[in-house]
Amino acid sequence: MPKPVSSVLPVVLLGCGGVGRHLLHHIVSCRPLHAKQGVAIRVVGVGDSSSLLVADDVHSSGFDDALLTNICAAKSAGSPLSSLLGQGPCQLFKKPEANGKVIDTATVLGRSSGLVLVDCSATYDTVGLLKGAVDHGCCVVLANKKPLTGAYEDFEKLVSNFRRIRFESTVGAGLPVIASVTRIIASGDPISRIVGSLSGTLGYVMSELEDGKKISEIVKTAKSLGYTEPDPRDDLGGMDVARKGLILARLLGQRISMEDINVESLYPSELGPDAMSTNDFLESGVVQLDKSMEERVRAASLKGNVLRYVCEIGTAGCQVGLRELPKDSPLGRLRGSDNVVEVYSRCYESSPLVIQGAGAGNDTTAAGVLADILDLQDLFQKTA
Amino acid sequence: MPKPVSSVLPVVLLGCGGVGRHLLHHIVSCRPLHAKQGVAIRVVGVGDSSSLLVADDVHSSGFDDALLTNICAAKSAGSPLSSLLGQGPCQLFKKPEANGKVIDTATVLGRSSGLVLVDCSATYDTVGLLKGAVDHGCCVVLANKKPLTGAYEDFEKLVSNFRRIRFESTVGAGLPVIASVTRIIASGDPISRIVGSLSGTLGYVMSELEDGKKISEIVKTAKSLGYTEPDPRDDLGGMDVARKGLILARLLGQRISMEDINVESLYPSELGPDAMSTNDFLESGVVQLDKSMEERVRAASLKGNVLRYVCEIGTAGCQVGLRELPKDSPLGRLRGSDNVVEVYSRCYESSPLVIQGAGAGNDTTAAGVLADILDLQDLFQKTA
Repeated sequence: MPKPVSSVLPVVLLGCGGVGRHLLHHIVSCRPLHAKQGVAIRVVGVGDSSSLLVADDVHSSGFDDALLTNICAAKSAGSPLSSLLGQGPCQLFKKPEANGKVIDTATVLGRSSGLVLVDCSATYDTVGLLKGAVDHGCCVVLANKKPLTGAYEDFEKLVSNFRRIRFESTVGAGLPVIASVTRIIASGDPISRIVGSLSGTLGYVMSELEDGKKISEIVKTAKSLGYTEPDPRDDLGGMDVARKGLILARLLGQRISMEDINVESLYPSELGPDAMSTNDFLESGVVQLDKSMEERVRAASLKGNVLRYVCEIGTAGCQVGLRELPKDSPLGRLRGSDNVVEVYSRCYESSPLVIQGAGAGNDTTAAGVLADILDLQDLFQKTA
Repeated sequence: MPKPVSSVLPVVLLGCGGVGRHLLHHIVSCRPLHAKQGVAIRVVGVGDSSSLLVADDVHSSGFDDALLTNICAAKSAGSPLSSLLGQGPCQLFKKPEANGKVIDTATVLGRSSGLVLVDCSATYDTVGLLKGAVDHGCCVVLANKKPLTGAYEDFEKLVSNFRRIRFESTVGAGLPVIASVTRIIASGDPISRIVGSLSGTLGYVMSELEDGKKISEIVKTAKSLGYTEPDPRDDLGGMDVARKGLILARLLGQRISMEDINVESLYPSELGPDAMSTNDFLESGVVQLDKSMEERVRAASLKGNVLRYVCEIGTAGCQVGLRELPKDSPLGRLRGSDNVVEVYSRCYESSPLVIQGAGAGNDTTAAGVLADILDLQDLFQKTA
């Protein structure tokens, strides 16, 4: 029988970078809104790459809002979590003990109130903790793509109880891509193809190329504007897009792994990190791409097409790389750093379902994580 | 504590037209998929405008798939529900007794297994039943816009337990508009504006006008292709768009009603249903719109704009009517009968979240209803 709606969601957050801190900020600022909706988020632990801060009483109280705000301020200023000790009833655990404490908390709360383990880190190292949490009946919310893009067995384990995991922010930040694809699958509408531009950085590069600029100039400008990773080759290589493609492909039921994805890098291995430093790449490497890229842009343009860096998931698996696309298609029309995803299915056959918007940014990504946490609330209803 | 995932959702369906029949069809064809996901939909009652067929044992068994298929076939052939009697353990109730039986079922199941009352009808008359179901702790899923667009008190009552109602298919058919807006609201990202083209018919009309055709020709062709209501003025008047706008505005927290919405009709009252028949409108009425519409299209075009029939929800309430929009905007680029919705918020400020795709059709609408039903499954978990 449906329970009265009044839910408390205990949360342990792993990862306290830009996304994690924005999440804590959103949780605090949304308290009145969530109270009106009969739901409360109780943060009982926050971990970073070196340690874990845990509330003394995980059962009935978490960190108060002052402490959460202080955690954000401290981490933002580069201070360690240990600097928060004494600011509230909590304890600090250093790694590797910290990992054991996460599992302890999952064990204890998984059996009683339940727990949402939220991963806003950017490492593969959390996968063991996440699987442990799943084993103890806990829920998992991920902004971190890596646990879902490692071994297929890990993915399978994490999604084995599909109602207890959410990972919207792994693809297109807060854009409702995973939620929409999941709805379509649940309604028995078979998805035949997903095509997307899933990198804001590469979207920007492609749109500037279309305007006739040189890739060397575009990359240097993008880096100076903070649009790229510290080493822009991390964007240009396409691996981040491939991870998003893999998550979508696996969501569609494909038992594939990263090595099954054909990824076209925008730079050759002679210009790779093994061959030259980031500075050398920016100063003398990237200009070597200008001519060939200019030719590809021109060749596409002669056919009325534009170049886009695209991720395509179909029956033949997942491909990631440059494609020539009609200027007058959703992907071809894309300008700037927006992401766009086209989904083709029985219901969206001739004309796809298109979802477009900002697909990056700490604020947007954290908003997606928060929406995911709240989407689990029916599993956490207090029985009267 | 999160429960083991194994859910049975008892459903009573009101409305057995195109959407309702597609829903029953999808429920039957998705059985293996849903079984894999640990969820089962048990249809225990089906009602149409005159009667209600109810399973004898609503507690432990519903209609079997053969009977559901036969219901679709019978209703599709224009036969009454009474023609199904004897094909399974069920009883027929004529109205008004049928309504009492819906409430009886809601009372009985609301207290035990729970119930989802699904409204795929197109009438205001179901609102009493829906409110009764809510009172008994049941869930509600709507494709029918009317119960949400009547008195504000009715809307407020229906959404009072917001986790127990879904109404995705009332706006943009299966397009994930309501789900996405709900996610954004839940994450504390304040929505400042929603702009959309929410009528496939009017989208088609606007796109043909842009190509230089006359509105009289466009309307006649659209009617002959089955793109319009039997009386095309039901589309051209904008009330259907206004209903969708009202639902979105109320979802954003605006306490407004239909009479607060400024709706621009594409025909004047002299050409309305009180002044002439549908045939007269098509033969001699609609041509009277050609000249003025041509002038508006030309005036827009001179500024590089196109005309779109738009629904806009902002801080100043909800407006529905013709707008001149840049050719190079998501709404301006829209072609054919696709719907498109732009959502502006803190996270989607400079560049909106855009959702686009087929926003009509029985198959797509029913798929949206089915996804909504399944989205309620966490409230229906069997406790071990």
